[in-house]
Amino acid sequence: MSETIFALLTDFGLNDPYVAQMKSVLLAKAPGCTFLDISHQVLPQEILQAGFFLAATFSYLPGGTVCLAVVDPGVGTQRRILVLEKQGRTVLAPDNGLLGLLLAEPGENRLTALPPGPEQQGVSRTFHGRDLFAPLAADLAHHGPRHLPGRQISPDTLVTLSTPVPRHSGSSLTASVVHVDRFGNCVLNLRVAGWASLLRPGHKLTLILPARERVLVVDTYAWIPDQGVGLLQGSQGYYELACNRDSCAERLGLAIGYRITLEI
Amino acid sequence: MSETIFALLTDFGLNDPYVAQMKSVLLAKAPGCTFLDISHQVLPQEILQAGFFLAATFSYLPGGTVCLAVVDPGVGTQRRILVLEKQGRTVLAPDNGLLGLLLAEPGENRLTALPPGPEQQGVSRTFHGRDLFAPLAADLAHHGPRHLPGRQISPDTLVTLSTPVPRHSGSSLTASVVHVDRFGNCVLNLRVAGWASLLRPGHKLTLILPARERVLVVDTYAWIPDQGVGLLQGSQGYYELACNRDSCAERLGLAIGYRITLEI
Amino acid sequence: MSETIFALLTDFGLNDPYVAQMKSVLLAKAPGCTFLDISHQVLPQEILQAGFFLAATFSYLPGGTVCLAVVDPGVGTQRRILVLEKQGRTVLAPDNGLLGLLLAEPGENRLTALPPGPEQQGVSRTFHGRDLFAPLAADLAHHGPRHLPGRQISPDTLVTLSTPVPRHSGSSLTASVVHVDRFGNCVLNLRVAGWASLLRPGHKLTLILPARERVLVVDTYAWIPDQGVGLLQGSQGYYELACNRDSCAERLGLAIGYRITLEI
Repeated sequence: MSETIFALLTDFGLNDPYVAQMKSVLLAKAPGCTFLDISHQVLPQEILQAGFFLAATFSYLPGGTVCLAVVDPGVGTQRRILVLEKQGRTVLAPDNGLLGLLLAEPGENRLTALPPGPEQQGVSRTFHGRDLFAPLAADLAHHGPRHLPGRQISPDTLVTLSTPVPRHSGSSLTASVVHVDRFGNCVLNLRVAGWASLLRPGHKLTLILPARERVLVVDTYAWIPDQGVGLLQGSQGYYELACNRDSCAERLGLAIGYRITLEI
Repeated sequence: MSETIFALLTDFGLNDPYVAQMKSVLLAKAPGCTFLDISHQVLPQEILQAGFFLAATFSYLPGGTVCLAVVDPGVGTQRRILVLEKQGRTVLAPDNGLLGLLLAEPGENRLTALPPGPEQQGVSRTFHGRDLFAPLAADLAHHGPRHLPGRQISPDTLVTLSTPVPRHSGSSLTASVVHVDRFGNCVLNLRVAGWASLLRPGHKLTLILPARERVLVVDTYAWIPDQGVGLLQGSQGYYELACNRDSCAERLGLAIGYRITLEI
Repeated sequence: MSETIFALLTDFGLNDPYVAQMKSVLLAKAPGCTFLDISHQVLPQEILQAGFFLAATFSYLPGGTVCLAVVDPGVGTQRRILVLEKQGRTVLAPDNGLLGLLLAEPGENRLTALPPGPEQQGVSRTFHGRDLFAPLAADLAHHGPRHLPGRQISPDTLVTLSTPVPRHSGSSLTASVVHVDRFGNCVLNLRVAGWASLLRPGHKLTLILPARERVLVVDTYAWIPDQGVGLLQGSQGYYELACNRDSCAERLGLAIGYRITLEI
């Protein structure tokens, strides 16, 4: 009986039997394994959101967990399949930028690119989550990541998203929205651990893009002024823009992938 | 390997990775545990609905199950955390009225209030389901509820919802809507076991509030007259108001928390 | 500890605690069992869609899996409960046409009809998924399908859906829509394995019903002409009608259960 935990992150949704088919392949190859569903409701092909969900959840996953992150607009093309070993856990993901935020989290990154299999050569009618990622993940759980074929690569060779990494120059801080939660709070790609010394509660900032707006750095939603915008540390380890009892995304016209600029 | 079953009831939704993070903490502390998702789609902060889901499901949970019920509008305040031992199962929940319906179900109730931890003192940015409830539940599963710090309390000291308990006086019966299902049927806080002798199939009642309407006590949906309203025993152990092939909630303008009065 | 895998397919949805109650009964009777959720979001009472989900997923289920398929508009009537043994797996389902597509998949079918229990005689207020199917499935997992009471029956005696099986006569091919996915692709009851020799990539067909339209048999979505309609092998093992970056269901006015006719 396998004691492997497979953590699954996809945009397959919860209506169709796609997740069940992926799990069936894993269960057949690793009887007794445990599943942990990070989310199957990533917006279709929204790599940025998937990357945020992964980075925010990764450090909570039990040691040894094998994670399959299948948000894969390039399915059927020759995009590479990556194996990331980090913090005692392993992730299998397409080389499309999904791993970006996680690579920037603390800890050493060991990256391997798998050789393209027959399913990856040219267009394919198969369902890669089930037919390619699941068997690879089961092998990986069985033999360890070092027994998969493939060669170690440098993070510099990875596909990156056009979304800029946060940049702080002079009095200007540029970041990007990586998630909008159901309350309309806009999560930014600003890790709390990296930016807390700059963004202290009580500071008054000015949002320049997408609109000129005063922003108060706060400790909690309740401190955001009425009609105002606050910047605060979210429970997911990243800063977020929020309004008091209002959707910040609607108020500022923000969505996933949008860039914001703050004057500090 | 832990054989604990953790039953989870939250309003976290199924899009964000919140449930996965809570489960990760439980899995890391209780390897091999089993999860049973009662629902993560409780309407946001809808304590009444959560309380109904819990009460309706509780007696089916395998003996020994540890239940985490985290619908918690008071997160970050000094609200108490409760441990309820009942029918060989244990529930961890905030002291906000969520346990009300379950306490009224048959069986002895043993209630403990945990001492407030640092996370509970004042406003907090943490995610209590993951950072407070999950570790407590794992401890509880490991050592039993009696080894948690805290003191036994009386049900009389609990926070109660403003929703009235059912009251029968003279010819008038007052109750409240605790759930509206996807067909628009309105579940009332009237346990079948407690009210079946009063509400017999064939009886003709009159709804006084929210609107004057004839109501027939029926055995099955098919017996509800066209355009009429029926009262019947639902599969969840509570009476419900229903229309034949129509949404009763829309027809009568009912929603969770609404009070109804019947003339018997 | 049971090592049984229960695969669950229902239209119960993910909001209410119905699935949890069914799983609770299974867990109590088969401690240590594993659940595999095929889908709980089958459209309400949509037998055709449930049958497709089951047929498409069945061959991936680990050997020995016990499947509960509870999409059951006839709940409370005297409809029969069926046990299907096939390919080393077992399915429990109401006799309402749900098994149709699966029976046509390769492999021997051994069918048993269970004798009606007290819950099946006449109208019932119970929740059959939880109160009837779950205990039966647990028994079945424990003792094997041959120890359940009931007699072997012929597939000819089963209830069938009015949806026609595909028919090819002369130059005309008639089939039915069994699923519309979230992109609006219309899955037909045409198994790839059975029709691939007739429907080769590059062939130009004409859709006669529901509307006159040219259809190109293609290998991949990208080959569908702009504004055009394609027919291709889907990842679920069945042919589907699709448009390029457009909803085929909306474009052609198709929905589950609709019949289409192609001129070949």
